[in-house]
Amino acid sequence: MNGSGTAPAVPRPAYRRLSVAERRAQLLTAALGLFAQRAPEDVSLDDVANAAQVSRPLVYRYFPGGKQQLYEAALRSAADNLEDCFAEAETGPLTQRLGRALDRYLAFVDEHDAGFSALLQGGSVVETARTDAIVDEVRRTAAEQILHHLGAPEPGPRLRMMVRTWLTAVEAASLIWLDEEKQPPLDELRDWLVDHFIALILATSATDEETGRIAAAAMAAEPREGPAGTLVQRLAPILGGAAHLL
Amino acid sequence: MNGSGTAPAVPRPAYRRLSVAERRAQLLTAALGLFAQRAPEDVSLDDVANAAQVSRPLVYRYFPGGKQQLYEAALRSAADNLEDCFAEAETGPLTQRLGRALDRYLAFVDEHDAGFSALLQGGSVVETARTDAIVDEVRRTAAEQILHHLGAPEPGPRLRMMVRTWLTAVEAASLIWLDEEKQPPLDELRDWLVDHFIALILATSATDEETGRIAAAAMAAEPREGPAGTLVQRLAPILGGAAHLL
Repeated sequence: MNGSGTAPAVPRPAYRRLSVAERRAQLLTAALGLFAQRAPEDVSLDDVANAAQVSRPLVYRYFPGGKQQLYEAALRSAADNLEDCFAEAETGPLTQRLGRALDRYLAFVDEHDAGFSALLQGGSVVETARTDAIVDEVRRTAAEQILHHLGAPEPGPRLRMMVRTWLTAVEAASLIWLDEEKQPPLDELRDWLVDHFIALILATSATDEETGRIAAAAMAAEPREGPAGTLVQRLAPILGGAAHLL
Repeated sequence: MNGSGTAPAVPRPAYRRLSVAERRAQLLTAALGLFAQRAPEDVSLDDVANAAQVSRPLVYRYFPGGKQQLYEAALRSAADNLEDCFAEAETGPLTQRLGRALDRYLAFVDEHDAGFSALLQGGSVVETARTDAIVDEVRRTAAEQILHHLGAPEPGPRLRMMVRTWLTAVEAASLIWLDEEKQPPLDELRDWLVDHFIALILATSATDEETGRIAAAAMAAEPREGPAGTLVQRLAPILGGAAHLL
C-alpha cells in the first residue's frame, strides 16, 4: 500500500535495484546517448546522472575517474560496436559482404553523429593517447577483417595500404555526409563506397601482382547483376569513348 | 682590423644585422626545421634560439606568445607551401598536372616528416582550434584547385565528395608511407595515387552525370602512353577475365 495518498504505487525507475553490471551498462548507455548527440566537452556528469535518472554520486561510484573515465568507457563500448560492423560471414560475393558491413557502419554513424564527428575530427578536450589508441584499434581491426575476406591475412605492403586508404575514405565520406545534412541517402553512399572499393582494387591490380590475383578471384565470384557487374557495364561506354588509350 | 689576435675577422652570423622581416623569416625557418623533425611538444624555445644562433629573449621579442605563437606561425608558413603544391598551370593532360602537384606535396611530406605526422595525426599538446583551422584551409584550398583543373569550380555534391575523399586518401597514404620507413619509392606512391584518382573519377562517373562529363573530357585529353592509357591497358586483361559481368 501507498501510505501518502491514493495514487497507484508505480515503481520509479531510479529505485529499481540493478546488479552492478546492469547499472554500469545503464550508465554507459545513457552516456553514449549523450556523447552521440554532443561533443564530449558539452556533456557533464550531471547530464549523465539525469539521463540515467540516478544521482551524481552514484555515477561517481561507478566511474571514480569522472567524465574522462566515463568517456573512455563509452568509447570502448562504441568501438566494440564498430568493430562488429566489419565482422561478416565468409559467404557470398565480396561486394555483398562489403555492402552489409557498410550498412552497419553507416547506421552507426547515423545514430552517433555528433559523437562520431567529435571523435574522428579530433581537437576534443577529452582526447588522450588512450582514446586515440581505441580509434586506431577500430581502424586496425576493420582493415584486418577486410584483408581476411580478401583471403590475404598477411598482405604485402601495397594491398595493405590500399585497404587502409579505402577505410580512411569511408571515414572521410561519413564525416562529409554528416556535414552535408546526411545527403545523399545512405544506400547511395554505401553503393558509391563499394564502387570506390572495386575501382581501387582494380587500379591497384595494375601495378601489384598480389592485388591482381585477389581482384581476379573476387571478380570471378561477382554476379552480373551485382555492384561489380553494374559498375563494369556502366564503365564500358565511358572507356569506349577513350578507345584511343588502348 | 681585428684587435684581439691574428685570426681573420670572419663575420659571426649571430651578430649580422638583419631587418625585422629577415630576422622573423630566419626564426621561422629555424622553427620549421625543428618542428619538421620532432613533435611540437619536444621542441623548446631554447632549441629554436640555438638553431637560429640567437638569444632566447630575442625569440620572445619576435614571438611574445612563446612556443604556441611560433608554432602557429611556422604552421602558417608550412600551410602556404602546401597550398602552393596544388597550384599548377592549366595546361597538359589532367594526370600530368596531378602528378606534378603530388610530386611537390610528397616532397614536402618527405622533408617535414615528423611535423607532418604530428600535425595530421592530432593529439599534439599545441593543437588548437586555430591550428585545426589552418589544416582545414589547406585541405579546402587543395580541393578547390583540383576542382578548378577539372573545370568544375562549382561542383555538385558527389563530385566534391569524390575530390575531398581522394585528398584524404593522399593524406592517409602519406602517413602510412612515413610509418613504413618511406616505402615504396616516392614515384611509385605518386603513380599509385594518380591511378587511384583515375579509378575513382571513373567509378563516380558510373552514377554521377556531372562527373561522367568531366571524366570523359579528361580521358579524351590523355595520351596513350600517359598514366590513364597505361592504367586502361593494364586493366583490359583483368576485366577480360571478368567478361561474365558484361
